[in-house]
Amino acid sequence: MAPVPDIAYHTLNDLDHSWSMAPSASTIPMGEYIFRRIQSLGVSSVFGVPGDFNLNLLEHLYSVEGMSWVGCANELNSAYAADGYSRASNKMGCVITTFGVGELSAINGISGAFSEYVPILHIVGTTPLSAKIAENNHTHHLVPKLSVFEPSDHFTYEKMVAPVSCHQETVVNASDAPGQIDTLIRQILKYKRPGYLFLPSDLADINVDGDFLIQRTTQQFYQSVDTNQSLTREVATKVLDKIYNCSNPAVLGDILCDRFQVTEHVRAFVKNACIKSFSTFMGKSVLDESDSRYIGTYNGVESNNEVIGYFQASDLILHIGNYYNEINSGHDTLYNNIDEEQLILMHPEYIKIGTELFRNVNFVHVLDVMLQMMDVSQIPRGISPTLSKKEINHIEHISASTPISQTHLLHKLQDFIKEDDFVVVETGSIMFGLPDLVLPKGARLFGQHFYLSIGYALPAALGVGVAMKDGNSKGRLILLEGDGSAQMTIQEFGNYVYQQITPIIFLLNNSGYTVERIIKGPQREYNDILPNWNWTEIFKTFGDRYESKSETKKIQTVEELDQVMLYTNNNNSKLKLFEVILDQMDVPWRFSYMTAASKNKAKIVG
Amino acid sequence: MAPVPDIAYHTLNDLDHSWSMAPSASTIPMGEYIFRRIQSLGVSSVFGVPGDFNLNLLEHLYSVEGMSWVGCANELNSAYAADGYSRASNKMGCVITTFGVGELSAINGISGAFSEYVPILHIVGTTPLSAKIAENNHTHHLVPKLSVFEPSDHFTYEKMVAPVSCHQETVVNASDAPGQIDTLIRQILKYKRPGYLFLPSDLADINVDGDFLIQRTTQQFYQSVDTNQSLTREVATKVLDKIYNCSNPAVLGDILCDRFQVTEHVRAFVKNACIKSFSTFMGKSVLDESDSRYIGTYNGVESNNEVIGYFQASDLILHIGNYYNEINSGHDTLYNNIDEEQLILMHPEYIKIGTELFRNVNFVHVLDVMLQMMDVSQIPRGISPTLSKKEINHIEHISASTPISQTHLLHKLQDFIKEDDFVVVETGSIMFGLPDLVLPKGARLFGQHFYLSIGYALPAALGVGVAMKDGNSKGRLILLEGDGSAQMTIQEFGNYVYQQITPIIFLLNNSGYTVERIIKGPQREYNDILPNWNWTEIFKTFGDRYESKSETKKIQTVEELDQVMLYTNNNNSKLKLFEVILDQMDVPWRFSYMTAASKNKAKIVG
Repeated sequence: MAPVPDIAYHTLNDLDHSWSMAPSASTIPMGEYIFRRIQSLGVSSVFGVPGDFNLNLLEHLYSVEGMSWVGCANELNSAYAADGYSRASNKMGCVITTFGVGELSAINGISGAFSEYVPILHIVGTTPLSAKIAENNHTHHLVPKLSVFEPSDHFTYEKMVAPVSCHQETVVNASDAPGQIDTLIRQILKYKRPGYLFLPSDLADINVDGDFLIQRTTQQFYQSVDTNQSLTREVATKVLDKIYNCSNPAVLGDILCDRFQVTEHVRAFVKNACIKSFSTFMGKSVLDESDSRYIGTYNGVESNNEVIGYFQASDLILHIGNYYNEINSGHDTLYNNIDEEQLILMHPEYIKIGTELFRNVNFVHVLDVMLQMMDVSQIPRGISPTLSKKEINHIEHISASTPISQTHLLHKLQDFIKEDDFVVVETGSIMFGLPDLVLPKGARLFGQHFYLSIGYALPAALGVGVAMKDGNSKGRLILLEGDGSAQMTIQEFGNYVYQQITPIIFLLNNSGYTVERIIKGPQREYNDILPNWNWTEIFKTFGDRYESKSETKKIQTVEELDQVMLYTNNNNSKLKLFEVILDQMDVPWRFSYMTAASKNKAKIVG
Repeated sequence: MAPVPDIAYHTLNDLDHSWSMAPSASTIPMGEYIFRRIQSLGVSSVFGVPGDFNLNLLEHLYSVEGMSWVGCANELNSAYAADGYSRASNKMGCVITTFGVGELSAINGISGAFSEYVPILHIVGTTPLSAKIAENNHTHHLVPKLSVFEPSDHFTYEKMVAPVSCHQETVVNASDAPGQIDTLIRQILKYKRPGYLFLPSDLADINVDGDFLIQRTTQQFYQSVDTNQSLTREVATKVLDKIYNCSNPAVLGDILCDRFQVTEHVRAFVKNACIKSFSTFMGKSVLDESDSRYIGTYNGVESNNEVIGYFQASDLILHIGNYYNEINSGHDTLYNNIDEEQLILMHPEYIKIGTELFRNVNFVHVLDVMLQMMDVSQIPRGISPTLSKKEINHIEHISASTPISQTHLLHKLQDFIKEDDFVVVETGSIMFGLPDLVLPKGARLFGQHFYLSIGYALPAALGVGVAMKDGNSKGRLILLEGDGSAQMTIQEFGNYVYQQITPIIFLLNNSGYTVERIIKGPQREYNDILPNWNWTEIFKTFGDRYESKSETKKIQTVEELDQVMLYTNNNNSKLKLFEVILDQMDVPWRFSYMTAASKNKAKIVG
């Protein structure tokens, strides 16, 4: 048997019986403190599912005007929704669950957020302090030990979540709580990773010192970590010198720009320096793709040949906000034919210029200084593309065996997606077709491109939609969803109706797990999903009986696709679902290519 | 920040490159070995969701005739289904998921199974051995570390599941694999708890020694642990002596009888000894309730007064298969007014006679010896109840504010449930009404009475239904489901249609989380669920468009309830869902009582 971790996280001695403060002018109930702190960071919607151990906390939500509760159908969905909210708002997401049964149901969503640098505060209402102290601790929702002779551990779940969170705090008394809460949130915002607050159900009502809400300013929470100013200047100078001395530089914009809020810096740099730019697979929509110097999405050998050509013609690459992983590196081919000396990496944890590595320097500050210091006249203009952007990013055709193919849909989406639209894409084959699109100004793309948990996008789009409402976004919400993925988290469609968000949904019905059919077992039943779902009835069943808020249509031909796209452009008020019938084995070219590549790596790097 | 467990579970040195055996007459692919072993234990259906890291394994399912794949809509549901399958079949459940995204989605179902002694083999298809060894280990589905300077840990999930499993094995080569697989399964069956097999995706096809399949017999797997024979005899004698010397003995049958397969022993003992019996809250249906000596469900102060009276009149209680926890002890009132010397506890880990504790003795063997040795003439007949069983277990009325109340439904269920019916009850207020029923012979009740994770019952009933089909059960499947709970795991209704299981479903629609409204916030929106679902359309939407396999009806009155129950008794072929409209605050009496009790414990023990 594998050893059980034996770490004394908390002993009962840590638990303080004299927990509440004497009431005074500045005291405030703990629950209210938590929601006021969350609100102070610009977050106005929290997601979750009620449970007996978090009801006391939820009550305090109603003391804070402007805070909204978005109850979800289950906890995994609520974690995905909080993730979507965070990505779309560029603020912290917040999810509230109950002890054990709730928090464990959400853990895969949290693991995905951790994997993709999404800051989420996960508050878990736990067994009360009184139960933790009591001798009989076989409490419901608490997994016992293997032997009945071992007492249950009320802190067992705290230990389980350590690998998927940057920080955990368990509240045990009033005096420490505000500090714990604030420390936790600062860590979440620093690392852009989920963190956990464990709140015993009998502590939500106790009084804490409310003065901290004023003393610790919002700015202090969002402030990036201080770095050595002279080092920052030294590094910025080195980067600029390297640029001045090359002949054909390019920026490769990546996902961590968005997560660490340097997107605007990078866009300004690209624009002011008149420098050529590419986005990575995960970094798509970080750069302004309508900028004349933007070329396309580069993902190593898994890119359009023209994009590869322009990328590799560069003699200096500034890879900014880089997240190097299997998927985002074109299966380890991202720097093919690029010499180490031709590469500058700007990452939240380090800057690397050629072979020189600098740590304890923050890329936000370096970019700031670069923007101030740069001499545009010294920046080489490089080689201009001879092809139009449309020619470079042509969507490659493969033979389509049904009236509508994914490739055809991608062609149509190129024109359908408008300025400021937010597009959420499910993990699935369509995700690997989107790099060929050139997005209009202000359009943003969201998906779980690295962790790749299917079912993510449907609830995440709820979160994106709520964030768009909270932030008064101008654009539309578009969801590209798969049939197998949708089945995973389908109940949250009911929340689209309830929360009155109005995405345009393309439900790609290819009768199963097409991604997996391509990998193995094209005809095997294990790649079948639950069959014959009546997708166009889903909103009627899930809360919109008379279709007053939604409309749906099944489309099978190119002509029908044109019709619904045209109709949608002129009719925006209702939630729309279009069931797009596709062939079981129809995928965008890059997906076939990538699958072959990962099966036989030698083939693609040779 | 809480410390991250730093345990060297596996180092890369453990991983063996020379993994495959030379083919010989007895070699067999690893995947086939696994499925043949599972089948040898009487398990013929496995549940799960495909993913790129388990497809190689799933292929081998088709080499084993008689094994069935039950693909589920998501992983949490598949874990619940495997749990239901195990409970109903009294065999091991099996669930197959993929690395990270799949296994973590299932973890709450596994935690519930661990909490309620349900043996489940959870097989996780992991990253291939080649990826674990490779230098670049930022693989999809694998949560990275907090810092990019720390390498990802391909074994991180193995560590996370330790608290919810009795044993974990990671396969790394061919020679050790059969031993690892068999050891793991023996542990699962010994502890009746879930265990994990982590199988790298590139090892499913390698050859292993198939001889073990014959050498290690099925009996060896199910065999209970040997104990000291003279101690067993000594303990059995002491128990019998204690019975011979009392005047009014009773058996309290509990859940672990069922889990550790001593139900038949206990039933035989109760019958042969003509001894009075009670079941616990969790142990309901362990005893034959049609037996004339069966009195009712006893759960401390949370019992009918008549049951309490008869229980406390006993001067010796044999509590067999006891699972003492918050819920199953009537909030710690189970032994009220029972002296320690009047109590015999027979548990898988120990026997306790009065104040004497015996460990290393198996209650299966002790019961065996008791059955052989007992002299029925010496067993006192005790006091016979003066009331009829119906009078003792009367379902207490509370005022009903709607045409149908839960109390009324319980009255009707008393007659509706027939011999050999399997009843699955969701976590919710109705669960706390069922103790007042007296079940007919062969009827069984399933629910997650201690862990209490809502959403469990709907997919668990799928597993129960599949087990009933596999085992050619005679009775019907009845599901008592709540509206809020059903929303959690609703997609698995599609699998009812696909797998052609035909339960009778009572969907209790009380417009929200009634359990929580009773505890706090009766009018708060956080206790609302997604509103206005059209429950009677659900099967049409989820695969049975023309209602060829299902029928549904919304019922609001006592008369309509009578009608559908009568109709159902005469029409069994189709899956049926009855949406029962209830008042938001209508609950069985015990639930109100229990909630008040747990809020103010002093009140109930005083």
